Amino acid sequence: MKTLFRLLALTAFAVLHCTSLSAGEVAQRHTPTAQKLKALCDADTTLWPLMAEFCDYFPRRLSGSTMLDESLTWLERRLTAEGWTVKSQPVMVPNWKRGQESARLLAPYHRNLPMLGLGGSVGTGGKPLRADILVVTSFDDLRKRGSQAKGRIVVWNVPFTTYGQTVAYRYNGASEAARYGAVASLVRSVGPFSMQTPHTGGMAYNDSLPKIPAAAITMEDALFFQRMQDRGEQLSVELVMNATWEQDAPSRNIIVEIPGTELPNEVVVMGGHIDSWDVGFGAMDDAGGCIVAWRALRHIRDLGLKPKRTIRMCFWTNEENGLRGGVGYARQTEQERHVMGIESDGGVFKPTGFSTSAKGPLRTYLEDAALLLAPIGASTLTDGEGGADTSPLHEKGVPVMELVTDGPYFWYHHTDADSPDKLDPKQMADCTYAMAIMAWVCAQQ
Amino acid sequence: MKTLFRLLALTAFAVLHCTSLSAGEVAQRHTPTAQKLKALCDADTTLWPLMAEFCDYFPRRLSGSTMLDESLTWLERRLTAEGWTVKSQPVMVPNWKRGQESARLLAPYHRNLPMLGLGGSVGTGGKPLRADILVVTSFDDLRKRGSQAKGRIVVWNVPFTTYGQTVAYRYNGASEAARYGAVASLVRSVGPFSMQTPHTGGMAYNDSLPKIPAAAITMEDALFFQRMQDRGEQLSVELVMNATWEQDAPSRNIIVEIPGTELPNEVVVMGGHIDSWDVGFGAMDDAGGCIVAWRALRHIRDLGLKPKRTIRMCFWTNEENGLRGGVGYARQTEQERHVMGIESDGGVFKPTGFSTSAKGPLRTYLEDAALLLAPIGASTLTDGEGGADTSPLHEKGVPVMELVTDGPYFWYHHTDADSPDKLDPKQMADCTYAMAIMAWVCAQQ
Repeated sequence: MKTLFRLLALTAFAVLHCTSLSAGEVAQRHTPTAQKLKALCDADTTLWPLMAEFCDYFPRRLSGSTMLDESLTWLERRLTAEGWTVKSQPVMVPNWKRGQESARLLAPYHRNLPMLGLGGSVGTGGKPLRADILVVTSFDDLRKRGSQAKGRIVVWNVPFTTYGQTVAYRYNGASEAARYGAVASLVRSVGPFSMQTPHTGGMAYNDSLPKIPAAAITMEDALFFQRMQDRGEQLSVELVMNATWEQDAPSRNIIVEIPGTELPNEVVVMGGHIDSWDVGFGAMDDAGGCIVAWRALRHIRDLGLKPKRTIRMCFWTNEENGLRGGVGYARQTEQERHVMGIESDGGVFKPTGFSTSAKGPLRTYLEDAALLLAPIGASTLTDGEGGADTSPLHEKGVPVMELVTDGPYFWYHHTDADSPDKLDPKQMADCTYAMAIMAWVCAQQ
Repeated sequence: MKTLFRLLALTAFAVLHCTSLSAGEVAQRHTPTAQKLKALCDADTTLWPLMAEFCDYFPRRLSGSTMLDESLTWLERRLTAEGWTVKSQPVMVPNWKRGQESARLLAPYHRNLPMLGLGGSVGTGGKPLRADILVVTSFDDLRKRGSQAKGRIVVWNVPFTTYGQTVAYRYNGASEAARYGAVASLVRSVGPFSMQTPHTGGMAYNDSLPKIPAAAITMEDALFFQRMQDRGEQLSVELVMNATWEQDAPSRNIIVEIPGTELPNEVVVMGGHIDSWDVGFGAMDDAGGCIVAWRALRHIRDLGLKPKRTIRMCFWTNEENGLRGGVGYARQTEQERHVMGIESDGGVFKPTGFSTSAKGPLRTYLEDAALLLAPIGASTLTDGEGGADTSPLHEKGVPVMELVTDGPYFWYHHTDADSPDKLDPKQMADCTYAMAIMAWVCAQQ
């Protein structure tokens, strides 16, 4: 890897001298530090095991759960034992409980349908809801078939295109179905691949319409329903959901940092969200992002680096169904000046670069610094608005970045299959390096 | 495609004249027929829909189930309506019922564990079985830890290598665990990839040892158990299985054929098995193989081809947990001379060729004929013992072949994810062509 760095330094030098006075300068200046960080990341055999240990003992860290609370306490202890001064930012979080739930095909034959209620959904009122189904393929399709929806369970058989596009049906499907008199809404799980895998996720109601139960079924069953309807069959489904809303619960963001030597009130924050849905292990979404930020900060500390500005790691709470952690963070740090918010919430798979809202000289600076990520193939910067947890900062004008990785993120997203085995130690090490580099160069601007 | 065939004919001609008098001759002789069969296969838009229709109406065709029986009746009607004289071969089949079942982690926290009882397993005696677990990684590992197995549930955390190797733990794991006093056996599902996907499948008991309940858990949970045990944790699991054996039930193989014009008592049989496990839709395992054989025979008939020998299509029953269909077929056709048994039971994915037990001149003949499959990239012949259903024929000395395909067969094998959407119309058309060609050339030897 040293050879690669030498090549990089030469390239940076060449770029500097051949194209402009500044291009490559940042990478060149930080190459010795980058080499040391890379070596630490590569040598760290505790990264994947730490992620797995955390996930194994504390899966299903839904806001309001005892599991989330216990996971935070465990992290605080571990961080303290590692020599950090741990701060926490208290926030109140929504407290939705899934309860017992099931879906069953009643006609033309009986079959249990793998399903997950959507976060925020109402239940079926303590009794099974039985109704015929109507399969539709889009909001437009429902408008056309509106008269058939009354008294039925609407099934949204919408193929995955991008998450941003397809998630609209998970998020708004229930109210759109209720608009036409439907009694429940079943969305085809939002993902490009399935092994009878339901994906949960957030949803919301339009308050001017009746609130009907909303759940995700699998891609396989949505396609099955479609085929049967196309053959003229009327399918009938029984849905049981005991979901309830309880009182908001206390939670907290967890923060550790290396104070800036010159501008301690100027902050680079990096992190992930520590809560997860109440399925799987929440490994790639987003224990991995949290652990990678943690190790990035630790490697910076272990190298004895003294950043100009404060580099902070934050485990945000309640990203999945409320964003109270991200909002609380922005509110509770109003006295500080954030120079960058960096999140990893796209899965710590093979890193390819970062997306960023940075423009102008800062963008140029980051493009230059990203050359330091060439040894791991992660030098690409694209436009983006950052992760969800940094969005409240971004709204206040703080530039943000998000780690971009190449992996089957949406296969496992919000499913029982989001487990430690889906993450790779080497890819996680590279993500750690990428986060460490970007935090460091942002602090040294 | 015509160009490809012309190229093929030229190649066959060249091979014939450059290397030996016979090589390429078979392919050359049958090229006009092959072209017509290929055109019919490519033009048939009913293939995938027929498979999907069958699977949608008749999933979970386990031996002894009403579903299997109804599926056979439906097939008989459809075949009769298509103008075939349908024969059936009655056999009695084993009748194992899964019953309600579940597994749950009790300590260090509660979590439902996705599971499937193994076919043939006993139940837990009408009550939950609760015990600590012992994770082992091989038969050898269990021998070493034998003293720890008493009173525990043995978990076989054996990574997938090949099906043939790894399935030994599913098949024999329970009795091996019972040998050391274990009270139940949980096998890591036999497959290379998982999305919390349990795989069922057959198992058997050693009659000299206690019969203990046997089920499959997921790859994810086997790895989780291993990690927790490696950390010194004692995990505890509750297993509920209400599996029972009922009296053998009547079932039948279904047969249609094109009688041979010259040697009607000499038979080429091709087919798949029509039963499935009681999970998923049994699409790739093995409705696809059956439907492909059906369409292959139909295309031969529709072209007005008159085979020298009888070409028969058979839907064998009870492949999954008894092989009574295959055994019954061999017994009930003893008056005939089988010249070839061809099965498709490896998933109708992208065909790459056939495996075959044929040796000597027959092998040479088949190698030559396989050139006709070059247009679909399926000319490779490898050594093999054929499919399970043709094994009773093979034991009597009949040469056998099995369609070989390239696809993620063991991802879906014996799982809820074996559904119509996993199969591709074009790949199925190519499989149909491959089956039709091999049946035809074997009949024309």
